[in-house]
Amino acid sequence: MDLKSKLRHVMNFPKEGIDFIDITTVLQNPEALKYSLDCMKESMEEFGDYDIIVAPEARGFIFGVPLAYMTGKGFIPVRKPGKLPYKTISFEYELEYGTSTLEIHEDAVKPGQKILIVDDLLATSGTAESIIRLIEKMGGEVVGIQVLIELEFLKGRDKLKGYNVKSIVQF
Amino acid sequence: MDLKSKLRHVMNFPKEGIDFIDITTVLQNPEALKYSLDCMKESMEEFGDYDIIVAPEARGFIFGVPLAYMTGKGFIPVRKPGKLPYKTISFEYELEYGTSTLEIHEDAVKPGQKILIVDDLLATSGTAESIIRLIEKMGGEVVGIQVLIELEFLKGRDKLKGYNVKSIVQF
Repeated sequence: MDLKSKLRHVMNFPKEGIDFIDITTVLQNPEALKYSLDCMKESMEEFGDYDIIVAPEARGFIFGVPLAYMTGKGFIPVRKPGKLPYKTISFEYELEYGTSTLEIHEDAVKPGQKILIVDDLLATSGTAESIIRLIEKMGGEVVGIQVLIELEFLKGRDKLKGYNVKSIVQF
Repeated sequence: MDLKSKLRHVMNFPKEGIDFIDITTVLQNPEALKYSLDCMKESMEEFGDYDIIVAPEARGFIFGVPLAYMTGKGFIPVRKPGKLPYKTISFEYELEYGTSTLEIHEDAVKPGQKILIVDDLLATSGTAESIIRLIEKMGGEVVGIQVLIELEFLKGRDKLKGYNVKSIVQF
């Protein structure tokens, strides 16, 4: 399936000059949704053994939870501040303007656990780097990062040297 | 499986006096995650025929997308304002203090389409009611609402008269 042709481009979102890749047209299409998840599952087999899947809200959940179900693993959510009810560990990271913070439950990742990170998109890699820091702070080991879409022109992969990054569709 | 015993109670979140049901302990447990989704899938069979699943961010995505995959359907996200890139229809609803708004892509639901709403929790039913209004505004027909957890003492179900609501775990 030509997954690229199923994605919608929305110009000037969230701001002027950005060509935003809209995944909702893929989600709405049962065959495209199934194909996306099946491709990601197959791709993930090359990461070898892992214990659990971690994904950030909200679009990371869209792919992370089905893939956890499909591979018989558990799922750990990473969220914006104030969303997780139990005790959390947080990591603040730089954005183009200002900063953003991500949180994870402090008992979510066990020391030595092998973690696979899943997200919809790899852009500048700010989110992925933050999740890696959170996981490593808790003693977890990141075995790989699986995304559906990679914006290669933003070179996010270059900032994730030493980590195994895999994507299904590249722009 | 005794799913109730796998859920964590966090007292005084998000504010004093609230006994918050934390689903992350279920998500982290591969057997409990699989069991939850399998129970929801089985329960949904009683809704009869439907075309597509709709769920709100962020916790609705956790159950809505795997269930779409498992039942061979597509998925439509409902989001907070400013998150969906394409043209949207919005609905503002009352909270205890102030209001909140939910959005859906204006081309997401087709007139006459049969929609199944999925969420993690039914509490006062504010979110479910808003999603119903959005779907009906677009000419869609809500065939049912499937949640994992229902807080029966909040009587959210009473406000959804005429709609078929099903839950797996009740408090």
